[in-house]
Amino acid sequence: MVSILVLNGPNLNLLGTRQPGIYGATTLPQIEESCRETARTLGISVAFAQSNHEGTLIDAIHAARGVHDGIVFNAGAYTHSSIALMDAVSSVGLPMIELHLSNVHAREPFRHVSYLSGVALGVICGFGPAGYGLALQALAGHLRDAG
Amino acid sequence: MVSILVLNGPNLNLLGTRQPGIYGATTLPQIEESCRETARTLGISVAFAQSNHEGTLIDAIHAARGVHDGIVFNAGAYTHSSIALMDAVSSVGLPMIELHLSNVHAREPFRHVSYLSGVALGVICGFGPAGYGLALQALAGHLRDAG
Amino acid sequence: MVSILVLNGPNLNLLGTRQPGIYGATTLPQIEESCRETARTLGISVAFAQSNHEGTLIDAIHAARGVHDGIVFNAGAYTHSSIALMDAVSSVGLPMIELHLSNVHAREPFRHVSYLSGVALGVICGFGPAGYGLALQALAGHLRDAG
Amino acid sequence: MVSILVLNGPNLNLLGTRQPGIYGATTLPQIEESCRETARTLGISVAFAQSNHEGTLIDAIHAARGVHDGIVFNAGAYTHSSIALMDAVSSVGLPMIELHLSNVHAREPFRHVSYLSGVALGVICGFGPAGYGLALQALAGHLRDAG
Amino acid sequence: MVSILVLNGPNLNLLGTRQPGIYGATTLPQIEESCRETARTLGISVAFAQSNHEGTLIDAIHAARGVHDGIVFNAGAYTHSSIALMDAVSSVGLPMIELHLSNVHAREPFRHVSYLSGVALGVICGFGPAGYGLALQALAGHLRDAG
Amino acid sequence: MVSILVLNGPNLNLLGTRQPGIYGATTLPQIEESCRETARTLGISVAFAQSNHEGTLIDAIHAARGVHDGIVFNAGAYTHSSIALMDAVSSVGLPMIELHLSNVHAREPFRHVSYLSGVALGVICGFGPAGYGLALQALAGHLRDAG
Amino acid sequence: MVSILVLNGPNLNLLGTRQPGIYGATTLPQIEESCRETARTLGISVAFAQSNHEGTLIDAIHAARGVHDGIVFNAGAYTHSSIALMDAVSSVGLPMIELHLSNVHAREPFRHVSYLSGVALGVICGFGPAGYGLALQALAGHLRDAG
Amino acid sequence: MVSILVLNGPNLNLLGTRQPGIYGATTLPQIEESCRETARTLGISVAFAQSNHEGTLIDAIHAARGVHDGIVFNAGAYTHSSIALMDAVSSVGLPMIELHLSNVHAREPFRHVSYLSGVALGVICGFGPAGYGLALQALAGHLRDAG
Amino acid sequence: MVSILVLNGPNLNLLGTRQPGIYGATTLPQIEESCRETARTLGISVAFAQSNHEGTLIDAIHAARGVHDGIVFNAGAYTHSSIALMDAVSSVGLPMIELHLSNVHAREPFRHVSYLSGVALGVICGFGPAGYGLALQALAGHLRDAG
Amino acid sequence: MVSILVLNGPNLNLLGTRQPGIYGATTLPQIEESCRETARTLGISVAFAQSNHEGTLIDAIHAARGVHDGIVFNAGAYTHSSIALMDAVSSVGLPMIELHLSNVHAREPFRHVSYLSGVALGVICGFGPAGYGLALQALAGHLRDAG
Amino acid sequence: MVSILVLNGPNLNLLGTRQPGIYGATTLPQIEESCRETARTLGISVAFAQSNHEGTLIDAIHAARGVHDGIVFNAGAYTHSSIALMDAVSSVGLPMIELHLSNVHAREPFRHVSYLSGVALGVICGFGPAGYGLALQALAGHLRDAG
Amino acid sequence: MVSILVLNGPNLNLLGTRQPGIYGATTLPQIEESCRETARTLGISVAFAQSNHEGTLIDAIHAARGVHDGIVFNAGAYTHSSIALMDAVSSVGLPMIELHLSNVHAREPFRHVSYLSGVALGVICGFGPAGYGLALQALAGHLRDAG
Repeated sequence: MVSILVLNGPNLNLLGTRQPGIYGATTLPQIEESCRETARTLGISVAFAQSNHEGTLIDAIHAARGVHDGIVFNAGAYTHSSIALMDAVSSVGLPMIELHLSNVHAREPFRHVSYLSGVALGVICGFGPAGYGLALQALAGHLRDAG
Repeated sequence: MVSILVLNGPNLNLLGTRQPGIYGATTLPQIEESCRETARTLGISVAFAQSNHEGTLIDAIHAARGVHDGIVFNAGAYTHSSIALMDAVSSVGLPMIELHLSNVHAREPFRHVSYLSGVALGVICGFGPAGYGLALQALAGHLRDAG
Repeated sequence: MVSILVLNGPNLNLLGTRQPGIYGATTLPQIEESCRETARTLGISVAFAQSNHEGTLIDAIHAARGVHDGIVFNAGAYTHSSIALMDAVSSVGLPMIELHLSNVHAREPFRHVSYLSGVALGVICGFGPAGYGLALQALAGHLRDAG
Repeated sequence: MVSILVLNGPNLNLLGTRQPGIYGATTLPQIEESCRETARTLGISVAFAQSNHEGTLIDAIHAARGVHDGIVFNAGAYTHSSIALMDAVSSVGLPMIELHLSNVHAREPFRHVSYLSGVALGVICGFGPAGYGLALQALAGHLRDAG
Repeated sequence: MVSILVLNGPNLNLLGTRQPGIYGATTLPQIEESCRETARTLGISVAFAQSNHEGTLIDAIHAARGVHDGIVFNAGAYTHSSIALMDAVSSVGLPMIELHLSNVHAREPFRHVSYLSGVALGVICGFGPAGYGLALQALAGHLRDAG
Repeated sequence: MVSILVLNGPNLNLLGTRQPGIYGATTLPQIEESCRETARTLGISVAFAQSNHEGTLIDAIHAARGVHDGIVFNAGAYTHSSIALMDAVSSVGLPMIELHLSNVHAREPFRHVSYLSGVALGVICGFGPAGYGLALQALAGHLRDAG
Repeated sequence: MVSILVLNGPNLNLLGTRQPGIYGATTLPQIEESCRETARTLGISVAFAQSNHEGTLIDAIHAARGVHDGIVFNAGAYTHSSIALMDAVSSVGLPMIELHLSNVHAREPFRHVSYLSGVALGVICGFGPAGYGLALQALAGHLRDAG
Repeated sequence: MVSILVLNGPNLNLLGTRQPGIYGATTLPQIEESCRETARTLGISVAFAQSNHEGTLIDAIHAARGVHDGIVFNAGAYTHSSIALMDAVSSVGLPMIELHLSNVHAREPFRHVSYLSGVALGVICGFGPAGYGLALQALAGHLRDAG
Repeated sequence: MVSILVLNGPNLNLLGTRQPGIYGATTLPQIEESCRETARTLGISVAFAQSNHEGTLIDAIHAARGVHDGIVFNAGAYTHSSIALMDAVSSVGLPMIELHLSNVHAREPFRHVSYLSGVALGVICGFGPAGYGLALQALAGHLRDAG
Repeated sequence: MVSILVLNGPNLNLLGTRQPGIYGATTLPQIEESCRETARTLGISVAFAQSNHEGTLIDAIHAARGVHDGIVFNAGAYTHSSIALMDAVSSVGLPMIELHLSNVHAREPFRHVSYLSGVALGVICGFGPAGYGLALQALAGHLRDAG
Repeated sequence: MVSILVLNGPNLNLLGTRQPGIYGATTLPQIEESCRETARTLGISVAFAQSNHEGTLIDAIHAARGVHDGIVFNAGAYTHSSIALMDAVSSVGLPMIELHLSNVHAREPFRHVSYLSGVALGVICGFGPAGYGLALQALAGHLRDAG
Repeated sequence: MVSILVLNGPNLNLLGTRQPGIYGATTLPQIEESCRETARTLGISVAFAQSNHEGTLIDAIHAARGVHDGIVFNAGAYTHSSIALMDAVSSVGLPMIELHLSNVHAREPFRHVSYLSGVALGVICGFGPAGYGLALQALAGHLRDAG
């Protein structure tokens, strides 16, 4: 059975409990629950990890080798500055979808830069929590086609 | 019934017949057929337009007012240069999803710039023809939530 | 009798019917009617054209040779990207006033760039529909002085 | 009765007596006389000030509070470098029209930058002395509409 | 028999009738006649198209597939701004020579940028109408060698 | 009683023991002791944390919610590169003062950039250890006024 | 007795009477009164000067030699453009603290540049009128330590 | 006996097991074994550390004070973004050689920037695992000469 | 008899009394005395003016018309920022030599930019007080040749 | 009889013997022989020079005065960096055609810059050895027309 | 027997006799003698060349074909500006190690740019004369592995 | 007796014989003769060298050590690109005056950049042949003062 790691970066642990005006009222556990439902529908399995530590995210990507078939990655602010995360994704060779809750291209200029895009299969942004479901669907489809 | 315009820009009429190595072997009529199926599943209606003319695309966006509830827009190369299309989208006030077949962020730097992103609901890129289905789903969901 | 072409570019056909908060409630036909009144006062004749198509605007500028004595040109978003329109104005050699409804210099940086300014007689922006009357008056005065 | 301050910046005291090829043969007193005539026609009053000193121009803008209803401001070379004048205009809250005799956008690149445009009602440039009359007319119209 | 499309972009329809000081006194029909003579000498056939509309030029490039063996393309001002034309040339896969009447590298900086050069076989500029003959000769030679 | 978190970033644990010529001979424990004295005078309580790990600093900011009323933050080198810390501060919504021992604006250009300034209440730099006392005083005053 | 010059630049004479939403309701005389109280507490003397004229500010800095022991300098908009003020501070060799009422780093990009920072002892910004008291305290402490 | 810390940064733990086409088939333990042999030849001792966490690398550099005489540092992707690591090296005052397996100057532009180079004794890149031996030799030689 | 104005800008009144390490021990009156001697040798007359006020310098340049035949201008820090002084020199049409005591090209980058150079006859910098004599000699020679 | 110098710059002596995949298998002597044939057809004479030394190329351009009527110049890598060669061409006043074997605009960005283009009659690139014949033809035509 | 050319560029002939504070007291002949010893140890042969002439260095690289197996190249200041030397190295296809005595990355920004790095096997800098030995060792190892 | 080398770079051998409109009608031998007269007046000796070869200029600077006391250097176009000449001047440690016939700051932007200025005693430009006399005078004065 296809297995996908849903990996979330810095500050996403606060989702739903702060600044609902910007990021919505859905919490990260609710998003994970919703992902599990989508996974059931798609016939795949999902696992979750979140960290505010760049190094822990790198470790998690390394650990995904041989365990998962792809990664849905919302790297938060590290998207715009971390070459190390980009290299980690390149190193493990798993297909990765870059995800953002907000439309980063409509925000500050420094959020328009992404080191991850260059090594991503594709990018989905601006659809809030619904983006996770779309990403799982896109990645499952890609893995099915590539399988 | 919710109605969505799927609007395609320059050179997309050639899809599937040229450079299948890059853009795949699916033709634009096949994508449209696939969109119709997705629309049936989602219980929405879709309409299609394609043009290589920036002005015709502007006219099509204007004409969507009062006829459609949202736009899935693959503006092709005009994405990166057309302020007029950006203004057209702003003018009609319909929610618009920016779509690209390829992961534009992994291509030449001039394809990393988008005038449309700033007025888009969200962006989906890199998933080939499958992106149209994801975009319809995302837009239908948005319209349902916003309705 | 002096004849002036009032040429309007992309999205200006929607004036008054959308986003009145930004662009005001005056429609393009109302602006044209107001221009006709100003023209009567100034003892000149005016003609009007509007298009969302860059090529059609170029054709209109070409066609103005031998027919009109000058152009009041609100090129909308093409102002900031069209070298072809700049070349068209240079080619026909008619005095042209660049006009904008809004104060483009107080908006996004990409609206501060104008390819037309370098070949314009002068620039008027920020006065809404009243700018057309000022431009006709300025151009009529220029033609009278240059005559 | 509406009162407008016509404020002129550095080197404009030399108008008409030097470089007539560039700036024309009209002197500043002649422009002021012409402004008075336009003011009579418009039923408004005008006052004049000119200084080569940035600080004196700031003082004049401050002093306009409670005395004048708006400012027509040809800041000359300070347009392109003075944040202090921009702040002065913001501070007093009077509508201000930025004016230039020449088409600054067709000159050296450093003249394309204006700190004043961002706080101006609108901009008029390229029409020589006639620009003052257009600016008075535009400002009087604005004050009448806003009144 | 080898067939070459000679495609001309915006404002080139005015050649010879305006600004002869810059662009010379030769008209576009005269250039076409001269191209026909060169073609006869080279034993190839030529076809001609000109448009001020970017979209029409894209359409013409698309239509050249299966009809012509190569394109001599003077895209005029679109050279410097049109990614869509660049993509059109890439899409149809025909060898294309970029041509300019004037030496664009000795003019304004924005004319030093070309989106077409990256997908062109080669570039010829600065030789006026004579450049068309050189381009036909170069393209015929290339097609003969590649044949 | 008002409570303030004094948070120190990378390399500040070495204060006073290395490079006293640049950063002075005061150690971090001495600074903390001095902060406690200032806090007693101001009638507020203070807590301290230091880490060389960006993720640990983010965690500390998250943990400050509901525990402290504001943060005095010397983020050291992370000031100039960490969007994640900026987002963390935005997320928890506590007033934060950005602090630097040295005058960063008089050092290398890359130290002139701060992602934290945009979300800070204010900035204090260049006063060495004395800056902590000024920051506590400023933050206590702000909280008293805002209370 | 230590003597400090509190020097204020352009537009600061309007404090409290205009735009209280941005700059607060405190007037410059009130700030000066508050500074006198702080000075009494610190056992130092203070003097005040304000001018909208860059040259007058330079003269005031020159005149401070041999009269004052340090300068608290809010140079307003001249902060961002005046190399002459920077040179004046360097020339007289007095310790100077750069002060801003607002957090300039959270405003327009051109306010992020300071020619004064490079020759300042330190920088304090964002605390409104309270910043003057902090600056006096910091400068008095510095002079005491350096004495 | 001279002691050198060989410090490796993010993703280097994967060496030899992934992407051998780019980084070679040698694993990090094999490199360490080879370093031990070189150290025996040079009559020095070596210690090793690797982490994907920027903070852990800072901690390791701090801990090297008083324990090691110099550092051979392959900071991987953190080379290009970490001012904090640069400051850590400056803080401990140990001679450091910057090392890269690949020739970073022949890769993406963002890998041409190094915050570490400015505080390094020297730089060695492009020689794969053999670079470690060269670096140990260079650092041992430097310490012998400086001793 | 040829008459030359030697005009000095901001902070030059402090020459010789402060920072002799950088600017030397010669005072401005001593430089003026030395200029008078050079003038006697050259058979020309000289006049002097110094101001820290940009506006006063503009006024002085205006006043030089019809009184002096050329200007030796050390504009100090205004060299690098004042378009108004550049325009003043252009306006009066007198030959002007730009002078600097120090070699500004070997100092901070912002001192490498000069608005005056573009309208100067020539530039002399780096020779300290001796530069004034060289400039008088150069200007006298130029006026003699041009006479 | 018209005489043209064909001047080749650095590394062109290796043509045909190295990297035939990029630069083709034709040697420089073969190109020269082909040029001689073209010259015979055109009724002109040709001379040849090649050097890897910038100074020798300058000397050759100087020596062409009074001897040749024009220059076909493939300056190789010096094209992108040599202002001295640009000045040499300007100094001798001979019409010069800039030539490149490869399409430099489709290669690295630093090859898109040419100091020679600004003083060239025209530019031909991308046609390999055939470009020399086209250039001779173009230059002969130009000299015939200009004669 | 493997043969390596040690090639030195401009100003390196002065080594040891001038500025020993920066470049050390070792002369170029002493470096060459040291290289010979290293070569004996490595069982390879070395040859030496030095020139201040860019063209002579190009000639030397060309002449190395068929004679040497690799190049250790200290191109001095030409490193940062010479595309012609970069092309020469590419043309002859020999492995080349870029060498600098000083750590160029810790010096002026224009020394951080290298045209040679992109075509080098690797880079060694900052180790003074010892760098030559390291480079010979690295190149000999590379040739042995590649042999 | 003080001895000064007057060194001239590329294209200056053509002085007076070409483009007298720009560079004047004075030839290099006439300038040298005039320098000899100035030298006699100053009681110094002068020597001359000119080359179009960067390497030869470097050699000449090297050879000046121990022979001359200073250099007047008109490096022509190499001024703007040659780091090697800058290093040569630094290496020999002789005072050098940078000289230009024309006012390079009033010409193309690439002539505003000088690698030599940073190592020059001072700069003189814009005075044509008379600049050589001024430079000899300035250098003789400097050597006398420094002697």
